[in-house]
Amino acid sequence: VVARSGAEALDRTDPLSAFRDRYVFPDDTIALDGNSLGRLPRDTLTRLERVVERQWAGGLVRSWDDWLDLPRRVGDLIGGALLGAEPGEVIVADSTTVNLHKLAAAALRAGGRDRPVVVTDRGNFPTDRYVLEALGPVRWVDEPGIGALGDDVGLVAFSHVDYRTGAVADLAGITAAAHAAGARVLWDLSHSVGVVPVDLAAHEVDLAVGATYKYLCGGPGSPALAYVRRDLIEVLRSPIPGWFGHRDPFLMGPAYEPADDIRRFLAGTPTVLALACVEEGARVLADAGLEKVREKVMGLTSFAVALADAWLVPLGFTVASPRAARRRGAHVALVHPRAEVVCRALVDVGVVTDFRHPDTLRLGLAPLSTRYVDVWDALDRVRTIGRGLS
Amino acid sequence: VVARSGAEALDRTDPLSAFRDRYVFPDDTIALDGNSLGRLPRDTLTRLERVVERQWAGGLVRSWDDWLDLPRRVGDLIGGALLGAEPGEVIVADSTTVNLHKLAAAALRAGGRDRPVVVTDRGNFPTDRYVLEALGPVRWVDEPGIGALGDDVGLVAFSHVDYRTGAVADLAGITAAAHAAGARVLWDLSHSVGVVPVDLAAHEVDLAVGATYKYLCGGPGSPALAYVRRDLIEVLRSPIPGWFGHRDPFLMGPAYEPADDIRRFLAGTPTVLALACVEEGARVLADAGLEKVREKVMGLTSFAVALADAWLVPLGFTVASPRAARRRGAHVALVHPRAEVVCRALVDVGVVTDFRHPDTLRLGLAPLSTRYVDVWDALDRVRTIGRGLS
Repeated sequence: VVARSGAEALDRTDPLSAFRDRYVFPDDTIALDGNSLGRLPRDTLTRLERVVERQWAGGLVRSWDDWLDLPRRVGDLIGGALLGAEPGEVIVADSTTVNLHKLAAAALRAGGRDRPVVVTDRGNFPTDRYVLEALGPVRWVDEPGIGALGDDVGLVAFSHVDYRTGAVADLAGITAAAHAAGARVLWDLSHSVGVVPVDLAAHEVDLAVGATYKYLCGGPGSPALAYVRRDLIEVLRSPIPGWFGHRDPFLMGPAYEPADDIRRFLAGTPTVLALACVEEGARVLADAGLEKVREKVMGLTSFAVALADAWLVPLGFTVASPRAARRRGAHVALVHPRAEVVCRALVDVGVVTDFRHPDTLRLGLAPLSTRYVDVWDALDRVRTIGRGLS
Repeated sequence: VVARSGAEALDRTDPLSAFRDRYVFPDDTIALDGNSLGRLPRDTLTRLERVVERQWAGGLVRSWDDWLDLPRRVGDLIGGALLGAEPGEVIVADSTTVNLHKLAAAALRAGGRDRPVVVTDRGNFPTDRYVLEALGPVRWVDEPGIGALGDDVGLVAFSHVDYRTGAVADLAGITAAAHAAGARVLWDLSHSVGVVPVDLAAHEVDLAVGATYKYLCGGPGSPALAYVRRDLIEVLRSPIPGWFGHRDPFLMGPAYEPADDIRRFLAGTPTVLALACVEEGARVLADAGLEKVREKVMGLTSFAVALADAWLVPLGFTVASPRAARRRGAHVALVHPRAEVVCRALVDVGVVTDFRHPDTLRLGLAPLSTRYVDVWDALDRVRTIGRGLS
């Protein structure tokens, strides 16, 4: 097993170590909740000051000249740097839930009456399951993956990275299989965007949604991304045709005419303050480069798994995440019957993780703000707490 | 006609004049765009600092203990102080467009197949028209008001205050007539909340939505309000059953079980920064008291109409707003064939108004941040520009 000096050595050779300075650390707390709420980027503070004091208070309504394009501009930044999407294929607006509803409803409607069925897995994130169930009959599978698809299936919808275990689904294989069966595919990228390569264009993914408050560090409840592949855009109509999805919102004409790019999936007025924060958060990842970020993610999670194997498995913990680094997102799940107690005790020793009912402790290792020594120190404290439990 | 000293005198006796200090004025610009984007409240600056630096950066994911309740807490504040609603009947989340979709779809579904028709007016705000048209057959009327309603009508939906003219619709009469015909009523309060009394309980209004970035000063694109009358809540189901509408979002169980209050109309994770801003903006109005605010609104708009009659009508302008103060919201509409040119020229002389295609200049007189001298100075400058046009 590695001594703390080993972790320090890994940090010294980390090519992304300087990016840590781009986040705010008000105290020594070790935040391993990047899978839930990413750290505050420094640039977000100056950007918010500009948006609030200069643009809102100073520019007043005139600032909409700059704001109007934000949902697409931030979408293009994320789409280009992190998703392999073309300009005009990604927007950031509304919540993941609302975007999922809009895209899934549109795809099912376009698929026609003969294909009303949605395929998803019982372990999918709750909001995904609830929203999909409200749209049509659901064929449940145990985990992301499809066998023989009936020709009544219009939509296949999975999460790219499992919110509990961090397991990466076979996006390429599932997408190809669904297409072969004549169904559309929607991926929820909430736990992969920014930490796992997602080449939407290369795999001809139809639809995607995802949260921006996790690894993209957009802040609590920041608006979500929505992606539709270019050639599908004009085939699909949003079930919520709001004025911001109109080709000219300020024409205010009698008939709804959808925008000719992904903006047709905008609904109401976008939340400017939160969108500006998403732009700043995403830019830090874009500056670092997804390839290096992915290397760091695999390095951090592998380090956490190795320490867990050595220190925590003997104490009754189980590593619930995949063993192969390439098959993991950026969080590591540790299962223990008393995980909730451990999660609470960790807060008292300065480590913030999160707990998922009934027995899972998640360590979200945001690649740019987490050091190897943070992982070492955190797991060392889990070990101390674990010893006290047995 | 009134001299500028008359305006100064009105300001001296204004019982709400001290509330002006609660907003930020970075320069001498006269902002008459309160109907579009309300001013930045001072308290919003300190609140944002707390939310961003202390709660997000410092508290990290633990801050959700405080944030979780925000949509309902801010809703109760607005509902109690400004809408005559009971606790648990109002939330703030998502956009006006998305809330309109959720509530209208839910009401139509509950109304059953025999009542698919929506009644609205051709002059309703575009997003309202587009969203309603996507939900069912629309029976168009020329303005808010209903004659004999067929028994196929499930929903009657109007704006309480017209976004162009500022005219106040007959909320009490229309609601009662719709109920007598067995239909539900949905009011869009975007241009009335905070400046016109809206006693939702007294008139037994079924549903309401509204923007918070206008008179509530929640900031650009801040999340919208949604109201459902208490006894209707358990009858209605959101078409977008997201995890935040679940009775226990973190239970993450297999089945969607809606919350037993208005929170069942939440969808995804709410936007915390923007919600906090809405709370601060609404509190200023709540502190001033709606009765006094309404008096000031009527005073300001009457003053503007009097000056327009004296100075601008001779120059070819028409006052498009109702003559009676009680029949007006907080903006005054001036129609002129060259209104767009006037709107642009006003910016150059330090007056921000807004223009609505094709010929309407709107003066939004936010009651707590606008003085009578601001109205005098602004209309004086419109007069100067108007003279140059003729």
